Amino acid sequence: MIAGIIGASGYGGAELVRLLSGHPEIDGLALSSVTFEGERIENIYPNFLGRVSYPLLKAEQVIAAAGVVFAALPHGVGEEYAAACMERNIHYIDLSADFRFGDDEETYSAWYGKRYRFPELHKRSVYGLPELNRRRIRELAEEGSVIIGNPGCYPTGGSLGAFAALAKGLASPDSPIIIDSVSGVTGGGREPSRSFHYPECADSVAPYKVASHRHTPEIARNIAAMAGKAGSPVIFTPHLAPMNRGILSTTYIPLAEKWRLTMPAAMGGVLPPSKEIEAKTAEIREIYADFYRDEPFVRILPAGLTAATNRVRQSNYCDISVHLDLNGSTLIIASAIDNMVKGAAGQAVQNMNILFGFNEKAGLEAIPALF
Amino acid sequence: MIAGIIGASGYGGAELVRLLSGHPEIDGLALSSVTFEGERIENIYPNFLGRVSYPLLKAEQVIAAAGVVFAALPHGVGEEYAAACMERNIHYIDLSADFRFGDDEETYSAWYGKRYRFPELHKRSVYGLPELNRRRIRELAEEGSVIIGNPGCYPTGGSLGAFAALAKGLASPDSPIIIDSVSGVTGGGREPSRSFHYPECADSVAPYKVASHRHTPEIARNIAAMAGKAGSPVIFTPHLAPMNRGILSTTYIPLAEKWRLTMPAAMGGVLPPSKEIEAKTAEIREIYADFYRDEPFVRILPAGLTAATNRVRQSNYCDISVHLDLNGSTLIIASAIDNMVKGAAGQAVQNMNILFGFNEKAGLEAIPALF
Amino acid sequence: MIAGIIGASGYGGAELVRLLSGHPEIDGLALSSVTFEGERIENIYPNFLGRVSYPLLKAEQVIAAAGVVFAALPHGVGEEYAAACMERNIHYIDLSADFRFGDDEETYSAWYGKRYRFPELHKRSVYGLPELNRRRIRELAEEGSVIIGNPGCYPTGGSLGAFAALAKGLASPDSPIIIDSVSGVTGGGREPSRSFHYPECADSVAPYKVASHRHTPEIARNIAAMAGKAGSPVIFTPHLAPMNRGILSTTYIPLAEKWRLTMPAAMGGVLPPSKEIEAKTAEIREIYADFYRDEPFVRILPAGLTAATNRVRQSNYCDISVHLDLNGSTLIIASAIDNMVKGAAGQAVQNMNILFGFNEKAGLEAIPALF
Amino acid sequence: MIAGIIGASGYGGAELVRLLSGHPEIDGLALSSVTFEGERIENIYPNFLGRVSYPLLKAEQVIAAAGVVFAALPHGVGEEYAAACMERNIHYIDLSADFRFGDDEETYSAWYGKRYRFPELHKRSVYGLPELNRRRIRELAEEGSVIIGNPGCYPTGGSLGAFAALAKGLASPDSPIIIDSVSGVTGGGREPSRSFHYPECADSVAPYKVASHRHTPEIARNIAAMAGKAGSPVIFTPHLAPMNRGILSTTYIPLAEKWRLTMPAAMGGVLPPSKEIEAKTAEIREIYADFYRDEPFVRILPAGLTAATNRVRQSNYCDISVHLDLNGSTLIIASAIDNMVKGAAGQAVQNMNILFGFNEKAGLEAIPALF
Repeated sequence: MIAGIIGASGYGGAELVRLLSGHPEIDGLALSSVTFEGERIENIYPNFLGRVSYPLLKAEQVIAAAGVVFAALPHGVGEEYAAACMERNIHYIDLSADFRFGDDEETYSAWYGKRYRFPELHKRSVYGLPELNRRRIRELAEEGSVIIGNPGCYPTGGSLGAFAALAKGLASPDSPIIIDSVSGVTGGGREPSRSFHYPECADSVAPYKVASHRHTPEIARNIAAMAGKAGSPVIFTPHLAPMNRGILSTTYIPLAEKWRLTMPAAMGGVLPPSKEIEAKTAEIREIYADFYRDEPFVRILPAGLTAATNRVRQSNYCDISVHLDLNGSTLIIASAIDNMVKGAAGQAVQNMNILFGFNEKAGLEAIPALF
Repeated sequence: MIAGIIGASGYGGAELVRLLSGHPEIDGLALSSVTFEGERIENIYPNFLGRVSYPLLKAEQVIAAAGVVFAALPHGVGEEYAAACMERNIHYIDLSADFRFGDDEETYSAWYGKRYRFPELHKRSVYGLPELNRRRIRELAEEGSVIIGNPGCYPTGGSLGAFAALAKGLASPDSPIIIDSVSGVTGGGREPSRSFHYPECADSVAPYKVASHRHTPEIARNIAAMAGKAGSPVIFTPHLAPMNRGILSTTYIPLAEKWRLTMPAAMGGVLPPSKEIEAKTAEIREIYADFYRDEPFVRILPAGLTAATNRVRQSNYCDISVHLDLNGSTLIIASAIDNMVKGAAGQAVQNMNILFGFNEKAGLEAIPALF
Repeated sequence: MIAGIIGASGYGGAELVRLLSGHPEIDGLALSSVTFEGERIENIYPNFLGRVSYPLLKAEQVIAAAGVVFAALPHGVGEEYAAACMERNIHYIDLSADFRFGDDEETYSAWYGKRYRFPELHKRSVYGLPELNRRRIRELAEEGSVIIGNPGCYPTGGSLGAFAALAKGLASPDSPIIIDSVSGVTGGGREPSRSFHYPECADSVAPYKVASHRHTPEIARNIAAMAGKAGSPVIFTPHLAPMNRGILSTTYIPLAEKWRLTMPAAMGGVLPPSKEIEAKTAEIREIYADFYRDEPFVRILPAGLTAATNRVRQSNYCDISVHLDLNGSTLIIASAIDNMVKGAAGQAVQNMNILFGFNEKAGLEAIPALF
Repeated sequence: MIAGIIGASGYGGAELVRLLSGHPEIDGLALSSVTFEGERIENIYPNFLGRVSYPLLKAEQVIAAAGVVFAALPHGVGEEYAAACMERNIHYIDLSADFRFGDDEETYSAWYGKRYRFPELHKRSVYGLPELNRRRIRELAEEGSVIIGNPGCYPTGGSLGAFAALAKGLASPDSPIIIDSVSGVTGGGREPSRSFHYPECADSVAPYKVASHRHTPEIARNIAAMAGKAGSPVIFTPHLAPMNRGILSTTYIPLAEKWRLTMPAAMGGVLPPSKEIEAKTAEIREIYADFYRDEPFVRILPAGLTAATNRVRQSNYCDISVHLDLNGSTLIIASAIDNMVKGAAGQAVQNMNILFGFNEKAGLEAIPALF
């Protein structure tokens, strides 16, 4: 099968090129780029020299040639390509936010400032977080061609950290869940700007778009979907750190009443680590391990280990470590992903694998690089 | 005056050497090191070549020569030097945790595994966070020689982020305050170890000592002190990021009932940014600005700016940006310090300035370096 | 076939684990470690969790179980394992310097301070730089079991940069060849030390072991071997840069008389870039491209591109860009490798592939990662 | 005195703001910026908040207000400001290349593609490398207002590494001097571009503009000036490394006949380190130390130390370490500067100090930061 990539010259597109070039079910690629049309991909990304060589075509040519189409475009420009793919009856996997909100156009337009051009198209779409919607993706694929709204990078790591607690009733239903995330700079894409200029972000950490990042409603929807009820408040704070790849999310989940420990009053408001905390943590870790047991790309870390972005580097894994605050009232989950793989291109490939009934791990077998 | 530094060969000690070498009230230094006794400081830190040249002596020699003594030692070994200084009637500024807990030996020993050798000594000590205890430091200095327990790096940045909200009644009294911090690697000190080995921490972010870091009770005490009541629960999660200097703390403070906004129910649990949120944020920012108006080293950032470690680099500033979550229920404070300056050596110099009645900014006038 | 790795817990060993785990001809691994004997490899390197799980055995057990043995040990301790492998009639691929000097014990002992324990063993050894010795490696493998002295990281990148010029008579025979190299920190191995402590090497570049690095005689031998004459003087300066992987070598090769351009006298000693220089550079680039045409892992970059370590990251490639100084007298070659792959474990796998007649690229097909 | 800075919003200008704000002879600043005219400098660089606050004016206003003018502009636009300053009879210190070539318009236009607009102006200019031209700067200042062509960053570090050898006759007159330099990314300025986009330069090292960088003729002129003869060939290769500040130059200087050691033939072309080499190195190090004895900002490192950019960070020092290749024929000099200080703004301040007869170290007393 030929895989098409619309927008192949951005970072997400180029990472798709890399992953799909090694995919056992993909025989070739068709690539497009508005900016670099007519050039070859290895001239834009010389790391591909001698390995991957395709001309950059028009999007229409890609759609005409491909058996599946990925789009790695800015928000708001991909609907017509999705429509064309549906017409050609091929799956369309969109890495932008355009198809992440299904028929909830209201939320999409409130946050992205655009209306749907083809509202009916969104009924054929599904939010492509396999750990949430794998069954739905398969069902839709059986019915015909599907549009995948591939999740954002932050929502992937943050949601996976919270899902088990939500599904298993650990989380207090009303208290806000806080997701504090730190991302590498590739998340900002290939276009140079002051924010991602080397001297401005090297050797420094800072939050950005506090209480205003567009991934917030996406996370909130995931949490509501897994909790089985709408309206769970979510607070999300992204940070930028001087690294290339990776997102580390620390998620604070207030425990439901019955899961809280009753601790003695503490000097200064906090007790030293205790056996009781350790035992309860182990119990919850086991619940997490159970919940994700059949997931090929979620690893619940054993006691003593803490999630770190350099242990999932270049891989499609989400590593999760489970912790409990010293007063026994709040679950603390650390989750790590490679923002370019599980947070973007890898998850898109995983979705393709599910849509086509391939081995879900096909093309995603890379062992995390040591450094 | 001669300033003495016991433990001058560690990072904290060497940063003291650098700052005190440019201090207008300090005429010379007396330095000690157990590991490097007999060598000269510029051989350990060649950046000092041609600028700072002192032999590394014994601690006793330092105490004998100095008009004020700083100790940058591991926890649990400095009490006898403090005793010697009190006997000589000179101030002793301790950068370890040994004198941060005053007469609360119970908390100290629960977290640090050691008992006080000279309990009565701790009655002459004061926790040296000027924004909390400046008056007390001055009062004690008028009475005689003082022991300063210089604050930990995380407690400095985190506490300053929370203080105004606590003092002004913004914070809900019962809900836990969450402090999520990201530190540079110098915080781990000069001794090589796997955790701080370049290839293990470059290009990666990870939390560590989740729900077990020793700075937690120190933060809890500060929050209780400022809130005027004990027992406020605190959750603290430190992370390591690939940078040399700096701590960025993101602090989540649930608002007291009367400060909360009543927002309409949100699709997916979260509303887009609104004028209402913006106005309330501005109101709280003003409260923060008022609260810290006379503090020489706290800068409340104007709207549109977010605290970042590279804006306080090499300086004694704590930068604070004020934000409000989208549901109007939780205050989000970002605070940034240079962990080696305001988080350690700079704050120690600030304490010396207060003790001696020097200009509080003396020796700490460096403008933050651009990069 | 089972591949054995003696010294699997160091960085070189662990990178071998990663590469061999994906090798199509390798069915399993047998690993040893003195330090971590009895533990499992995924506990030492948690990036392997759920993917690679082997206990760390004794070296003897590894040799007994394996069909080929890799040794990633410090210098001077591997000879007895090599002897054991020869006795068992299996190939032994040594990543240390112990078998890089063949029967030239004099040079080895002058630089490494040790004598050969089993001198006769070194007659069965071959220096494993395939671009120099591929034929010899194959010939020896036909005769029986072979000891490979896997090249050092610097000699690999530096020698490949110079080889074509030497083989094709471009280089002046008497003038020194200067190799100025910049390495990532993983080259220093897993053991923590001040030199590789994050705060000491972050945000800084420095040379080290100037005119004294042990890779110098190895480079000199390679250059002599390719030039077909001993005694070509070599100057080698290694530098450390704040990155994890990669070596960038800039090699200055004075041109032989007939290759030099005769340029007009220049104002200030240097002329602006000219068509003449460009044309001569293109001619020499073509010679390089010809020379390496059949090499699977050497890429001669087209005009306009310069070798960079981030274009060979995680791959076995050596990228080479060809330049000419403005006076037309000195060839300037930039060559980039991943020090852990082509500079260590990848090249060892390449040697195994040659020894066994596997596809030389087997297990080494990774496309360089974008970041 | 008021110091004016034309082009204050770029990195060089902002670093001037920082340094001049702490200069004991400067009472205030007048700043201009075309891009940000009307804004305040602390809004462009929030690290200045609460410390430095000036509006960004027009260049003409700056010239009218100032007692000395610095220009941190792109090449080719500053001549008219220089003319205006000469008319007003105030010194003009230009950080661009426009006044580095004196009356050698031919070289300037060959490399920078522009002709002088006011050729006669260049007769009042002097190349502002104090270690080369201090006396000339003073002499000109006695005659009237002076235009300083402040040196480029690479020429500063590279030239200082070579000067002693040239002046003292150590260098072979005909062989090319090779300068291989590694720079931090701030050298590329504040304007975002792909080359300085974080993900493209993090964790990677590469050369750029090989045999074509505009600093080459500037270096060649310095070398010729110090050697007392034109035409010494120079080869210069700049590299980019993932750090913010700093340039490390490794300079290879073939020794004049009488300075060469006669070494025995070496196995493989290279001998191990020897006492003979060590003694000769010490002798040459002493010559370097003598040569720079009165220079306030050049430090010749003692044996055992190697120049490193993190030892001169934030300071105006140039650190130099002296080495000799193993065959005794080539001097290897490592020199380190902070590219923003001694390589740009600091040197400009040093030139101002010389012009006005201030203490040459005024405003440049910062001790290099440990990290």
